[in-house]
Amino acid sequence: MDLGFPVPHPQSVIWRDDGLVLLDQRRLPTETVYLTLKTPEEVWTAIRDLAVRGAPAIGIAAAYGLYLGVRHVPEDDEAAFWRELDRVAAFLATARPTAVNLFWALDRMRKRAEAERGKPLAAVKVALLDEARALQREDAAVCRRIGEHLLTLLADGMGILTHCNAGGLATAAYGTALAPLYLAKERGWRLRVFADETRPVLQGARLTTYELQQAGIDVTLICDNMAGWVMKQGWVQAVIVGTDRVAANGDVANKIGTYSLAVLAKAHNIPFYVAAPTSSIDLATPTGADIPIEERPAHEVTEGFGRRTAPEGVQVYNPAFDVTPAELVTAIVTEHGIVRPPYPEALMRVVTESGG
Amino acid sequence: MDLGFPVPHPQSVIWRDDGLVLLDQRRLPTETVYLTLKTPEEVWTAIRDLAVRGAPAIGIAAAYGLYLGVRHVPEDDEAAFWRELDRVAAFLATARPTAVNLFWALDRMRKRAEAERGKPLAAVKVALLDEARALQREDAAVCRRIGEHLLTLLADGMGILTHCNAGGLATAAYGTALAPLYLAKERGWRLRVFADETRPVLQGARLTTYELQQAGIDVTLICDNMAGWVMKQGWVQAVIVGTDRVAANGDVANKIGTYSLAVLAKAHNIPFYVAAPTSSIDLATPTGADIPIEERPAHEVTEGFGRRTAPEGVQVYNPAFDVTPAELVTAIVTEHGIVRPPYPEALMRVVTESGG
Repeated sequence: MDLGFPVPHPQSVIWRDDGLVLLDQRRLPTETVYLTLKTPEEVWTAIRDLAVRGAPAIGIAAAYGLYLGVRHVPEDDEAAFWRELDRVAAFLATARPTAVNLFWALDRMRKRAEAERGKPLAAVKVALLDEARALQREDAAVCRRIGEHLLTLLADGMGILTHCNAGGLATAAYGTALAPLYLAKERGWRLRVFADETRPVLQGARLTTYELQQAGIDVTLICDNMAGWVMKQGWVQAVIVGTDRVAANGDVANKIGTYSLAVLAKAHNIPFYVAAPTSSIDLATPTGADIPIEERPAHEVTEGFGRRTAPEGVQVYNPAFDVTPAELVTAIVTEHGIVRPPYPEALMRVVTESGG
Repeated sequence: MDLGFPVPHPQSVIWRDDGLVLLDQRRLPTETVYLTLKTPEEVWTAIRDLAVRGAPAIGIAAAYGLYLGVRHVPEDDEAAFWRELDRVAAFLATARPTAVNLFWALDRMRKRAEAERGKPLAAVKVALLDEARALQREDAAVCRRIGEHLLTLLADGMGILTHCNAGGLATAAYGTALAPLYLAKERGWRLRVFADETRPVLQGARLTTYELQQAGIDVTLICDNMAGWVMKQGWVQAVIVGTDRVAANGDVANKIGTYSLAVLAKAHNIPFYVAAPTSSIDLATPTGADIPIEERPAHEVTEGFGRRTAPEGVQVYNPAFDVTPAELVTAIVTEHGIVRPPYPEALMRVVTESGG
């Protein structure tokens, strides 16, 4: 898909007439494998098993998944079509619980279908595919705008620390937290990026270093527990992370480890920025305490590297996300601009103005 | 060796007449393999490659290594014997740079040999083996006393977070940071222990959970980046870590990630305790800035578990240790009691009183 500007990294979600093509992110960086998915069940599994991950990319994949679920429904039974649309949307929404973009994208798809109600079902199907494509194109544009706003907070020569992968692979293109790094590169800036490896699934080691390296950006891999020490050396002037959901009060759900980073950034007087498309701001969630935190299987921790690294039968706590309280967040950067505290009013305003 | 009390976990360093037997800690927890070493070169490699690790255990292994280096030296050439003793001691001291116990143990062995100078070389050799065995026995007693002092800072029902492995496997027995957990178990207390997995070498996942599980202690494995979140849940009432070297001003060198933990503990008003045999207090090192920080190979991070988890050619920063400033340390607990700030005077006193 032409996104209107050159993309400096591999794309994670590609639509083709024969199905949804996903870059299997579980196999990166050592293997580049594309999966072609033809059913919503396959899309559900790809989301659940992290073949596709990153809140915006999950939303886009689910939108195409919904289209896959109805594209072959007979066009002569109106009631059956709408029943199936409801069923598939509800099903896809169960793939992962924390990222709000998943629900947001499915909701937007259903609204588009509703808007076409009364037209021949063939036309509704076309509209659904069109909507999924629009969603993908818009996400790339949103990411680029987030990057432009973030860039105004940075300067040539800075050290930037990031966590997990809120990059091009997590979105249609550019990423959210990584977008300013691509734009800085375009402008000839020299930034030094530190990427937390991000246990247990190692999205930082496997994906962030991979996509930044492909784009020729200076990136250094560290283990998560080195972040504080790297800050103490004076090597970090800004921490930038993505988010799976921002609550109405500015609390931020993101990959486990983000909370620790925010505490460490504050202790070192380093600004802590959250890159957030307005689609990830959920005014219906009052505070971080209302965000469900997905707990994932123990084997991600005990056998995450293909080899068992802990004794059999050991107890494991493996939350996939944590919540960073609003007071630790210096700014939330959206496609509509930089949101600063007090967050409740400012987030309400940015979402309302964006028509969200 | 009879240590005078039952040991609730496997022993890491065992002397037999045919050589030094080490439990190969690189293979745990999935394989229990013992190495029998007959030369100082083998001991040096075992220390460097982490078959034996933990500051006290390294000291003990090096002491036996020095004995191995001179046991077969002919007993008719006095000068050659002392030259060889010097050479082997200097060589073993280069195995790892950060832990002071290594130098301390070798120094003590040389002093013992010096004390025997003039006697037949056969007697000097016997004295050296005797000294290594004494060192091992004393270390177990020291650990148990550290555990008793730490226990006075804890209470039944508490949650304890620890990092790396400052346990029985890192010492002659009991460990330093883990010693109070074994003693609490003896007293019938129920503590809940959280063990950081401790990237990159996973001493927490592989060793701490293993030895605590073997002793029937309630232990939950977490990834390093979950520590802050676990603290925020209110599950941790004390952080206890070991140390490789305490500077004269109370700065503490320990496994990478300790500094971040100390910052997080402070932000959550959780006491941060360092378990330190007086042998790891180095009054000759004025501050943490004077402690050399070992940087280890990139492959520990990128291929730590037999599978590549980062792209080829990626830059990696892999410090094995960090330094926690004295102001973040609630207390340093030695075999001679609990040392509290101001540290410079208190550390001087405890070392002097112990005859160090």
